[in-house]
Amino acid sequence: MSVMTETTGKSKPKVVILGAGFGGLNAARELGSAADITVVDRNNYQTFLPLLYQVSTASLPADHIAYPIRAALRKSGAKFRMGTPISVDHKNKTVKLDSSEVIPFDHLIVAMGSATTDFGIPGVEEFALGMKTIHEALVIRSQIMRRFEDLTRFEDDSRLAIVVVGGGPTGVEMAGSLAELVQGPLHKDDYRASKHIDVYLLEAGPRLLPMFSPGLSEKTMRQLENMGVKVMVNTAVKEITSGKTTLANGTVIESEVVVWAAGVKGSPAIHDLSLPVKGNRLICDPTCQVTDYPYIWGVGDNAGVIGENGRPLPMVAPVAMQQGTFVAKQIKRLIKGKTVQVFKYVDKGSMATIGRNKAVVQVKGIRLWGAPAWFAWLFLHIYYLMGGQKRTATFVEWIWNYLTFDRNNRFISETL
Amino acid sequence: MSVMTETTGKSKPKVVILGAGFGGLNAARELGSAADITVVDRNNYQTFLPLLYQVSTASLPADHIAYPIRAALRKSGAKFRMGTPISVDHKNKTVKLDSSEVIPFDHLIVAMGSATTDFGIPGVEEFALGMKTIHEALVIRSQIMRRFEDLTRFEDDSRLAIVVVGGGPTGVEMAGSLAELVQGPLHKDDYRASKHIDVYLLEAGPRLLPMFSPGLSEKTMRQLENMGVKVMVNTAVKEITSGKTTLANGTVIESEVVVWAAGVKGSPAIHDLSLPVKGNRLICDPTCQVTDYPYIWGVGDNAGVIGENGRPLPMVAPVAMQQGTFVAKQIKRLIKGKTVQVFKYVDKGSMATIGRNKAVVQVKGIRLWGAPAWFAWLFLHIYYLMGGQKRTATFVEWIWNYLTFDRNNRFISETL
Repeated sequence: MSVMTETTGKSKPKVVILGAGFGGLNAARELGSAADITVVDRNNYQTFLPLLYQVSTASLPADHIAYPIRAALRKSGAKFRMGTPISVDHKNKTVKLDSSEVIPFDHLIVAMGSATTDFGIPGVEEFALGMKTIHEALVIRSQIMRRFEDLTRFEDDSRLAIVVVGGGPTGVEMAGSLAELVQGPLHKDDYRASKHIDVYLLEAGPRLLPMFSPGLSEKTMRQLENMGVKVMVNTAVKEITSGKTTLANGTVIESEVVVWAAGVKGSPAIHDLSLPVKGNRLICDPTCQVTDYPYIWGVGDNAGVIGENGRPLPMVAPVAMQQGTFVAKQIKRLIKGKTVQVFKYVDKGSMATIGRNKAVVQVKGIRLWGAPAWFAWLFLHIYYLMGGQKRTATFVEWIWNYLTFDRNNRFISETL
Repeated sequence: MSVMTETTGKSKPKVVILGAGFGGLNAARELGSAADITVVDRNNYQTFLPLLYQVSTASLPADHIAYPIRAALRKSGAKFRMGTPISVDHKNKTVKLDSSEVIPFDHLIVAMGSATTDFGIPGVEEFALGMKTIHEALVIRSQIMRRFEDLTRFEDDSRLAIVVVGGGPTGVEMAGSLAELVQGPLHKDDYRASKHIDVYLLEAGPRLLPMFSPGLSEKTMRQLENMGVKVMVNTAVKEITSGKTTLANGTVIESEVVVWAAGVKGSPAIHDLSLPVKGNRLICDPTCQVTDYPYIWGVGDNAGVIGENGRPLPMVAPVAMQQGTFVAKQIKRLIKGKTVQVFKYVDKGSMATIGRNKAVVQVKGIRLWGAPAWFAWLFLHIYYLMGGQKRTATFVEWIWNYLTFDRNNRFISETL
């Protein structure tokens, strides 16, 4: 028997939130005691995705970017269920989880985020490593460290190529951090072997970080090259096989490790909800309500809310956070008998870190790079890291890494 | 071709150290530039085993107790190879690794530690969770957190029993830390579910911590019981099956999670070295030399050096640390043409932590318990944690846990 049928808050609407990412958690916190909330997520933790590349490159322990959802929800009074939705009964307004539990709702907020997309390029799924989960980040770390250990055994010209595909913020941050790992700790570990590692960054378009100004893209490329990264723009990948990355022009890069940071799509789980989907995202009205389903709300990467430029809003954390808060406010308006508003995304700008004292920031008219941008990046990430414990621990780790040029979170997991 | 045949230090003896635990690393550091050292370990990190239970119980991130071996060896100048020895050629004095690399030696130090032993009790290997590796610690954490999430779904009398087998320091520390996890963070997460969790501690002998005085054993038992642990002494396990622990007297405990902390034996890898083995440990002279193999040295858990009481020395970290240093000193004596000495173990006493402000310490005549013992334990563990980074990070984590009664390192690994 379902727990939720015995709910005690008689007049409170039941709100089920699918997904405990930036969007879902913001919605739960904004709703607070106004609703009888149940949050559902396949994990018992929120992954702080903006810092995932730091786990891949041994800068942070995995636990620092895995925040317990139950701890995040304590103040909101929301219930939590670990599980995956397998179907929605639109007649009775219930959602069924893989645990067989059936949860009734008055409002359903769908905020399940995104998954890696391979754009149909052969071999990506089998031979490239994704950048969306902590497990994937630890696989990348283990693979790199394992290949490095192999390399130390060879006294010949053997080289190790690590290829990062995708010149967006994730790819840029990953490539920069990898270069620093190789030239810092791995250099100290085995001078000779570290000299035999190549880091590539491939971008299909004409420049890195296309959401930034061409000037900042250019600066980013030059800084990465100065750090030893082999940056290749206008370079599409045709196929990935074991140990080989084939480019559109036929060139083959011998690549032992390929990291895929080229694109995301809405979570495939939205296809199980019997809701209208287009381009892997829910079809939503400007109010974030799923079209023709006024009691179902789309939030973040899995929602295709159209922006002012007539195109779906970008799949970035600020959109999800703003929509999570917005949707909660709309539900509270409905409770009070008010009408629903239209969502307006406030673009607060973009930032990406390249390396030590190196970043780019673009906020409306303002463009920063170098150390000022890096400190702005640092401050914002520490500020947004959830929970005082993670914030303190991460800060200590970063200060240590900064002062010593070292990275101590590089153990190889036995099973990865 | 082997790297070591091209060694540059002409007059230096070649020393190969198998195992980078407390013993192996101490040997490498003590030898330093006196020898041409190669350290071999199956992992690229040293596991700080005394704190493994804190990873199992969400107090510390795994990375905090996994110290990169290459970083530990930097000052000693030793080489490192990640791998497992598969055979020793005693005629040519070489050791072959699973990577096929063949490494020549003048002295071989065998310090490969220990593995869990099941004493032949059926079901232990299949259904109980070991406490010897980081992977095992994360499996325990994931299992407990996953069962807890299951439990929150049930509105009935379902109970979750976690059984810890073995009343030595590991079992005591594990049971105490589990009780605090359940009554602290899990209680805050879901009050009702946390009340339905039972923690058992089973000991086959008549008292907990047999290496301590009967008075301290008694205090330990009473404190654990006050913390809600169901302690059962004189309670041997007959069989473990899925979901059931059967005791020698026929009683069955419905046990969803069983943690096996009942015993260790020398690493099974010693059987591949063509050396004399007795009771799963190398047969060694009082000089730590393997009997009849004067150029091979046994250090720590895998070495059966006989103590003053006529029995093999206990399998504890201080023995391994002292023997590691001792063996290195003997090799340096041999280099100088001096004779080999006899190893004397200096027992500096025992300590075990039970919980917050609760521990027992026994150093020769001195017996401590409660808060003074706990602070002594804390100080020593922070002191012995290797590397300033781990020490700082762990200290910060502990202060946070202490002040907030919380534990934030409890994310469930997807594949565990």
